[in-house]
Amino acid sequence: MEKVVVALGGNALQDADSDATAEAQLEVVKETTRYLADIIEDGYNVIVAHGNGPQVGRIIIQNEHAKDVTPAMPLDICGAMSQGMIGYHLQQALGDELRSRNINNPVATIVTQVVVDKLDDAFQNPTKPIGPFYTKEEAEKLEEEKAYNMVEDSGRGYRRVVASPKPERIVEIETVKTLVDNNTVVITVGGGGIPVIEEEGRLEGIAAVIDKDLASKRLAEDLDADILVMLTAVERVAINFGKPNQKNLDKVTVEEMKKYAEEGHFAPGSMLPKVMAAIEFAESKPGRKAVIASLDKAKEALKGESGTIVQL
Amino acid sequence: MEKVVVALGGNALQDADSDATAEAQLEVVKETTRYLADIIEDGYNVIVAHGNGPQVGRIIIQNEHAKDVTPAMPLDICGAMSQGMIGYHLQQALGDELRSRNINNPVATIVTQVVVDKLDDAFQNPTKPIGPFYTKEEAEKLEEEKAYNMVEDSGRGYRRVVASPKPERIVEIETVKTLVDNNTVVITVGGGGIPVIEEEGRLEGIAAVIDKDLASKRLAEDLDADILVMLTAVERVAINFGKPNQKNLDKVTVEEMKKYAEEGHFAPGSMLPKVMAAIEFAESKPGRKAVIASLDKAKEALKGESGTIVQL
Repeated sequence: MEKVVVALGGNALQDADSDATAEAQLEVVKETTRYLADIIEDGYNVIVAHGNGPQVGRIIIQNEHAKDVTPAMPLDICGAMSQGMIGYHLQQALGDELRSRNINNPVATIVTQVVVDKLDDAFQNPTKPIGPFYTKEEAEKLEEEKAYNMVEDSGRGYRRVVASPKPERIVEIETVKTLVDNNTVVITVGGGGIPVIEEEGRLEGIAAVIDKDLASKRLAEDLDADILVMLTAVERVAINFGKPNQKNLDKVTVEEMKKYAEEGHFAPGSMLPKVMAAIEFAESKPGRKAVIASLDKAKEALKGESGTIVQL
Repeated sequence: MEKVVVALGGNALQDADSDATAEAQLEVVKETTRYLADIIEDGYNVIVAHGNGPQVGRIIIQNEHAKDVTPAMPLDICGAMSQGMIGYHLQQALGDELRSRNINNPVATIVTQVVVDKLDDAFQNPTKPIGPFYTKEEAEKLEEEKAYNMVEDSGRGYRRVVASPKPERIVEIETVKTLVDNNTVVITVGGGGIPVIEEEGRLEGIAAVIDKDLASKRLAEDLDADILVMLTAVERVAINFGKPNQKNLDKVTVEEMKKYAEEGHFAPGSMLPKVMAAIEFAESKPGRKAVIASLDKAKEALKGESGTIVQL
């Protein structure tokens, strides 16, 4: 049975209008789990990873709003909370959907920590905006009192930025392996994982955000998966995006994709991390395949009928 | 290897002064995990359950405070968030502590749903207060707009009350079993589990709070555990508590404990649910043992040197 790590993008968890009520989020998740169930029904051994950007953003906002009444939790804990929240909805909806198709694989979310290197260059240059917008005065206060890194965000106000270091090690990987080997559909590395550093053998949460596609790639390699599928809102990766000579890619080699990346075809923080994760996974071992595809074409993409497929 | 379900009480997760900062909570959790590691080091196969009362209360407050900016999440999701938060701290600290003792069992938190019966009598008479205090006017508004059940709480204001139905089925039990059989220390049924009802084979979150001792008992039975240990702030269960003839119980039979419970020795919402869980577990199968003990005497209690032990 082919092992497939599926990384869910933002559109798999909430709709484009960003209706953030629990009901609206659950409706989107229910639809997402139908696409996942389609793949599982086709006989793939599926492991699910997912983002958490808007969700953890809202948790941070809630923490900030109530901070005079109850202490705001740091980013690692907010990430853990988002894993609980999103994992709960995913496992509930996916379990329901599978049972309705007479597929009885258990589904479970593992709260997952991912070790990053405290010497990772990313900590010298934090770039990932998180949480609410602040005024200039508030931003300066946060810089002084909490040593936050604050940046002005395209005229909309100031936001905290944190580092986005590389995922080095998935702490709960043995647990994930055990469950995958026992036919459980595992939901893991939510939001890229809770970032922790290692200090004298002890783990410690750190304010950072790990890219979920890179964490999914790490997961796929550790599980010796056959395919890494990154699901997003577009059907295929494009070069010359938005230009008259835009070309959608269906099957590309690692070498071609590296060339396109070097030529600057892909937006940092958007398509580029997916492309880099695809390249790294595809070249990590012969036979491994990375696919970037649209959520609603996941099934077709695995058949080679949609999406961008990257191979050695 | 004897299988032990350990249910952690409130004092295992935050100190008596209720310092709710992340740092203070983590310090308490670290101490708790040393007691857990003591048991694991003694050769028991440990499964960890825990409460979430103060933690989910704070999450609800945060949700309420920010509700004009981002929708407040319902109670089931708040419970899922608390499982992520508490589970993360527990698995990080316990993993660290075990590795420092050269014990390499994986530790992992499973986001856990527990099915309750929507016809459970508890739904007719909600008694469990949750979340913040409100004024009379706010309470009346919530009763009208959200159909909340609100009660006056000993002069301190109004609070929402929800039902505390019996745990019928742990949805993720197969996953827990698989991991327990593979030497993983599993953290599960946090806060008694996320309460869900079953409607035509589909699960649906519901506003309720499941007693964590009863959920732990359900877990212990499902796992065919040998011992259910409920850790709290007192060393032994007492009859005639606070009176001149107070008597601390060390070893009692199920029949004796039933008599004491009927005589009204134990406070509802406090010692009574532990005693009922102990009785039910001990009588569920010959050889099963329930222990109510102090967190810092967990190791001694398992040796029969502390705590109240209930057996057939």
